[in-house]
Amino acid sequence: MTTDKITEFNEYRSRMNERIFESDNLVIKRFFNLDTHAYTAGSLSIKTKEMIGLACSMVLRCDDCIKYHIGKCKEEGLSKEEFFEVFSIALLIGGSIVIPHLRRAVEYLEEFDQ
Amino acid sequence: MTTDKITEFNEYRSRMNERIFESDNLVIKRFFNLDTHAYTAGSLSIKTKEMIGLACSMVLRCDDCIKYHIGKCKEEGLSKEEFFEVFSIALLIGGSIVIPHLRRAVEYLEEFDQ
Amino acid sequence: MTTDKITEFNEYRSRMNERIFESDNLVIKRFFNLDTHAYTAGSLSIKTKEMIGLACSMVLRCDDCIKYHIGKCKEEGLSKEEFFEVFSIALLIGGSIVIPHLRRAVEYLEEFDQ
Amino acid sequence: MTTDKITEFNEYRSRMNERIFESDNLVIKRFFNLDTHAYTAGSLSIKTKEMIGLACSMVLRCDDCIKYHIGKCKEEGLSKEEFFEVFSIALLIGGSIVIPHLRRAVEYLEEFDQ
Amino acid sequence: MTTDKITEFNEYRSRMNERIFESDNLVIKRFFNLDTHAYTAGSLSIKTKEMIGLACSMVLRCDDCIKYHIGKCKEEGLSKEEFFEVFSIALLIGGSIVIPHLRRAVEYLEEFDQ
Amino acid sequence: MTTDKITEFNEYRSRMNERIFESDNLVIKRFFNLDTHAYTAGSLSIKTKEMIGLACSMVLRCDDCIKYHIGKCKEEGLSKEEFFEVFSIALLIGGSIVIPHLRRAVEYLEEFDQ
Repeated sequence: MTTDKITEFNEYRSRMNERIFESDNLVIKRFFNLDTHAYTAGSLSIKTKEMIGLACSMVLRCDDCIKYHIGKCKEEGLSKEEFFEVFSIALLIGGSIVIPHLRRAVEYLEEFDQ
Repeated sequence: MTTDKITEFNEYRSRMNERIFESDNLVIKRFFNLDTHAYTAGSLSIKTKEMIGLACSMVLRCDDCIKYHIGKCKEEGLSKEEFFEVFSIALLIGGSIVIPHLRRAVEYLEEFDQ
Repeated sequence: MTTDKITEFNEYRSRMNERIFESDNLVIKRFFNLDTHAYTAGSLSIKTKEMIGLACSMVLRCDDCIKYHIGKCKEEGLSKEEFFEVFSIALLIGGSIVIPHLRRAVEYLEEFDQ
Repeated sequence: MTTDKITEFNEYRSRMNERIFESDNLVIKRFFNLDTHAYTAGSLSIKTKEMIGLACSMVLRCDDCIKYHIGKCKEEGLSKEEFFEVFSIALLIGGSIVIPHLRRAVEYLEEFDQ
Repeated sequence: MTTDKITEFNEYRSRMNERIFESDNLVIKRFFNLDTHAYTAGSLSIKTKEMIGLACSMVLRCDDCIKYHIGKCKEEGLSKEEFFEVFSIALLIGGSIVIPHLRRAVEYLEEFDQ
Repeated sequence: MTTDKITEFNEYRSRMNERIFESDNLVIKRFFNLDTHAYTAGSLSIKTKEMIGLACSMVLRCDDCIKYHIGKCKEEGLSKEEFFEVFSIALLIGGSIVIPHLRRAVEYLEEFDQ
């Protein structure tokens, strides 16, 4: 069950992705397809890949990317402890400038438990 | 013809630039003047310089900078296809963390056609 | 005397920091403690450390970090001229992509004089 | 006519790209193909795309990327004045931390005239 | 069995870490201890944490960090396929500016098989 | 008294700055002049400005910028304890990816005591 903030984020994301696809730019289309393909199961599980995606999004400080990968990690059944261990590594690697993004990540994560 | 979002962005930008100038800090003032000067026509056309400014703003993931250069590129008559080719190169260079900024760029670009 | 925007920022910050602490992740807790400890007086004064924190936040383009250090610098009695000299160095080092953050920094700084 | 430094750079690049391709990772292979495709002529000329690539490489401070795009821009006949206008915009956008990369870029560019 | 390049990297790293510790700066010492602690087994395995560390190092484009985590991932028995899946996600997230670091990562990884 | 590594760094820097000036690009020339001007004494002392420059260079992970500001801080009489307090704040803000640059900074700093 998702709350309004999660729905709102997902809907904006889908709507704009469609507009981007309508532009018919082949390089962008292929990039998006490749991006989807990269997170499918291979030697590494989807769960591992999504945790990697989440940590990278935090150190690069991209709130929307963080939200997206939190959603995916939730689908893969990541526990609260696992989430915070991913956060802790991202915090150490990226430093205190990650903190504002950590706050928003924790706030978004709590939306899933409403 | 510009819509509310474009006007709002430009007005905030102008208002705050004035406040910054009022501070009378010589280094900041000179930086702003130099910034304006850099995009005037030289060996490269304004259009080329503004496309470079737009792409750099995307890979550095600065939404306000993207908006500003979209406005300037529009003044230089950039076509939709040209915009998306600039976007595609920025996406490839900067990676998937550019995508949220690409979504907002496309949304802002569409404001000009309202 | 603080205005609504400053209060709002500080309250969100405190509320989310509490939620992060409740997670009981030891690495994150220790990082937060270390972060607090780093800005206490040593060979360098708190004022100098906070100016360094402010400039680093600007070149790394983290609005919330900028706000936080503006508040701390205000507590240390930084003058308007000193603020703008910190801003000017951050602008030169970080380039024109710092400008949107400079605008918001100046806007936030003015809140303290309301 | 190319000098040793240019040859050395190109040979290392080619050799390691081959090793990467031998890994047979489909996502990486497709990314490399997409990367090549993105700089072919479209609505924008190769020259414009390569200048964009060069400027983005400078603001992201990637020496090898800068070298690669300098080589490509040379192939497209970029004049010295045009090179320095690209550099000037990258410097303004990225700030003084771009300077060490600018020094190495100018040094590499001079190799082509030996 | 390690080759010269791996030994050289590890020795420089150890020697300079000692010099940093000799400075007796408490914040830096605690940070280093925390950094070591963060990668111990918890809800997530060491292997998962090291893969996260490796991917984050790539998107942040830090060659020494990449080398360090490659060494740690090797100790955890990461297979060649797993390494390249980590690389592929980092490449997609971070974009083509990651490529020069990918080349050096692959070169360093091959040192372990000498 | 300076050792070879310091001399080498300064000579390369001077030589390439001259080549950049010879290009006669007005924007770049003015940027360089502005950069010099920004670190002169104002409301803030040169020492404070150089410490800010050093910390910003560390969080942005620019080795040459770090070296330059270490040299300037040395001229301003920064003590070893002060250097390490600047380093400690940069480390906390920028995270563990700053560590390789910290190692090289400490190595360079020790050159001055030879």
